[in-house]
Amino acid sequence: MYSEQLETIFKKQKIEIGDRIKFTVNKKEIEGVLMPRPDSGNPNIIVVKLDNGYNIGLEYKDGQIIEKLSQHKKEEFLFPKSKIETANSLNKVALLYTGGTIGSKIDYMTGGVYMLTKPEELLHEVPELKNIANIEVEHLMSVASEDISYKEWQIMAKKAADALNNNAVGVVITHGTDTMHYTSAALSFMIENPKGPIVLTGAQRSSDRGSSDAFMNLICSTQLASKGNIKEVGICMHGTHSDNYCSFIRGSKARKMHTSSRDAFKAINSRELAKVYTDGKIEIDENAVIKRSEKMVLKTEFEPKVALIMSYPNSDPQIIEYYSKKGYKGLIIEGTGLGHAPVSTSHKEYNWLEAMKNGVESGMVIGMTSQCLNGRVNGNVYRNGRLIQETGVVYCEDMLPEVAYVKLGFLLGNHSKKDAKRLLLKNIAGEITEKTDFEVQ
Amino acid sequence: MYSEQLETIFKKQKIEIGDRIKFTVNKKEIEGVLMPRPDSGNPNIIVVKLDNGYNIGLEYKDGQIIEKLSQHKKEEFLFPKSKIETANSLNKVALLYTGGTIGSKIDYMTGGVYMLTKPEELLHEVPELKNIANIEVEHLMSVASEDISYKEWQIMAKKAADALNNNAVGVVITHGTDTMHYTSAALSFMIENPKGPIVLTGAQRSSDRGSSDAFMNLICSTQLASKGNIKEVGICMHGTHSDNYCSFIRGSKARKMHTSSRDAFKAINSRELAKVYTDGKIEIDENAVIKRSEKMVLKTEFEPKVALIMSYPNSDPQIIEYYSKKGYKGLIIEGTGLGHAPVSTSHKEYNWLEAMKNGVESGMVIGMTSQCLNGRVNGNVYRNGRLIQETGVVYCEDMLPEVAYVKLGFLLGNHSKKDAKRLLLKNIAGEITEKTDFEVQ
Repeated sequence: MYSEQLETIFKKQKIEIGDRIKFTVNKKEIEGVLMPRPDSGNPNIIVVKLDNGYNIGLEYKDGQIIEKLSQHKKEEFLFPKSKIETANSLNKVALLYTGGTIGSKIDYMTGGVYMLTKPEELLHEVPELKNIANIEVEHLMSVASEDISYKEWQIMAKKAADALNNNAVGVVITHGTDTMHYTSAALSFMIENPKGPIVLTGAQRSSDRGSSDAFMNLICSTQLASKGNIKEVGICMHGTHSDNYCSFIRGSKARKMHTSSRDAFKAINSRELAKVYTDGKIEIDENAVIKRSEKMVLKTEFEPKVALIMSYPNSDPQIIEYYSKKGYKGLIIEGTGLGHAPVSTSHKEYNWLEAMKNGVESGMVIGMTSQCLNGRVNGNVYRNGRLIQETGVVYCEDMLPEVAYVKLGFLLGNHSKKDAKRLLLKNIAGEITEKTDFEVQ
Repeated sequence: MYSEQLETIFKKQKIEIGDRIKFTVNKKEIEGVLMPRPDSGNPNIIVVKLDNGYNIGLEYKDGQIIEKLSQHKKEEFLFPKSKIETANSLNKVALLYTGGTIGSKIDYMTGGVYMLTKPEELLHEVPELKNIANIEVEHLMSVASEDISYKEWQIMAKKAADALNNNAVGVVITHGTDTMHYTSAALSFMIENPKGPIVLTGAQRSSDRGSSDAFMNLICSTQLASKGNIKEVGICMHGTHSDNYCSFIRGSKARKMHTSSRDAFKAINSRELAKVYTDGKIEIDENAVIKRSEKMVLKTEFEPKVALIMSYPNSDPQIIEYYSKKGYKGLIIEGTGLGHAPVSTSHKEYNWLEAMKNGVESGMVIGMTSQCLNGRVNGNVYRNGRLIQETGVVYCEDMLPEVAYVKLGFLLGNHSKKDAKRLLLKNIAGEITEKTDFEVQ
């Protein structure tokens, strides 16, 4: 519901959600379709969908004029039936639809969010797309991303590689944001030397909310995929809090860093690969992008018996034994600081050393990362780090914990344990940055 | 070792580490004590400790002049014997020493880091301190912070409260950085309505490295504690990458966000409480600081049978049962996005719902936070969140996972299970920010 004042005005003019309205501010007229009020925010801000597909929010002030122009049927407004006509001369882009907020709408009745039944509906919302690429939509699944497992990663990897092998110059995968960075890491490893861009995108706010990022993210991602030149798996979402550009972030260096903000995805221990603008302008960081000449190779095996655990004050080292007994093949520890865990001899119940040693001896590959996220782990600076290294735990350089987890599952699925342990420290998909010498400050 | 070129110059002039040298750059002379080269960085940068206590790095270029002024005995240089004379008119500040990098030095022989045997040595390194406060040093322990458990939190809480009850206007606690934010959260809860500032500080780089932050952090923390006006538990460390100011961050809103950078500690979901400058200037954010009039209360009980676990793709929900069987009283889940875990009915082995329900029914208090760190969890936006809430899992607002973990241990130690569950969502020490309405963007 909008504010009482606005609802009174709407009632008087018989304006309903979905109607076309004209709003006059400072003698300037704005026309568009009245959208429902976002579930939070100032109830005096009117959300209008403009003809260019964007939503804007306009604060209503006394004396401003709102007029009804024409009535829309809610169903048509929600699910437009027209087909998009695309010029054949444009590059082919495969749009793989998996679900998530970008494919969701607010249910006007309950206020909850529901998923679109047909992914094509997404395209109808963004008429600009027909001028960018020849888009072929494939509906892989309709799931929230927290429900995605390695089995869905395998489907996406295969379908993306198939598309690139079938004349698509690039691939856009619409995906929920919760675990998008786990998927982007998985695809980075599963698809070696991608023939074209594989662009994951989504929305933090559904497409019928005034502040939705769905349209711009989809447009920028399609622009990027349609060029075909950046041969990387990555995430393309809002680069800043406002609508100026999207950031394309390497799939093995991205992390969701905010629960609700539109610029939630950040490049960690890495620069962004490119800034992408809705008009198709792309500013590429040529030094960051990997040049590919070798053949694309698909390897989709994955060992799901790998766990991601944390060490912290009073944490229980026996968790390692728990996973070992369950037949787990690998563990990634999110340690503290440079990659530490409690090893104090005065608190035996919290000393991780013996558990680590036993875990490694039982045959698990154990990797150490840092819950600081930014920066590199280093087991050589302090005595505690050296003790941990002596147990056989592998220090995972500047890999994000989540990426090290996905990588270890990938390696154990496709290689022997010995090779997996060795390859954990080899840069495969840009997930490890070479050590840089830093100056005295 | 410095570069070969520099080592040759040093050898020729019989200059050794610890000697006083003069370095002439552009006709400007710089005098100071030659420090060992940091363990990484440009080997052609000479590190010199100036008479004001600061270290600087100067890049050596051909033709510059380096002269030996006088020889220092290494032992004297490492452990100066002079006593600090302090004016009695200054405010009393208690300095509680616990160890960590701030109390460490590089071992010239091995390149490793070792801890100071006497915390007083720390004071000798920073002559400025005698003009700031009347400092009483208490040596609580000499430990790396990853080895600190709730038992050390209890000691620190008691000693800090004792000091404030014994005429200290403020307390400085020197602490390792790995788990400093866990300790600051614990002290925030254990010391209700602190009578004065309780300032945790440390160093990311030891005091004999050119880029050490030890001195400035110690000076700013002492300045802050000596004023006595900000009655908060917090962390005071470098606010930026350079040496312009330190940030004072609320103890329940701080997190270490970089493994090695000097400005590693960040305020998450919160503004910093104050900017602190070495000269004693303090810019307080008056709206952020809590005004205290009630009596200081110390509650140090803590229930260590609480765990912090993560949910992520392919994650094992049976981990909840593992902790339940071990007699754990509480769990904090680091979920994805707005606070989700896998609940897909098509992947039963990864569905967390039943495990959550059983965990809650077995008597554990289970809280949900987000691995995004920034932002607030919300179980009402999506169906999956509503399903998780129905199991009895408590959505922990904008609390950091680590803070929710420490808070739950504190609550279960001092209250009944029922009260602990209720109080988890009550703001006790600034750990929960009130929900703010955000505008349509």
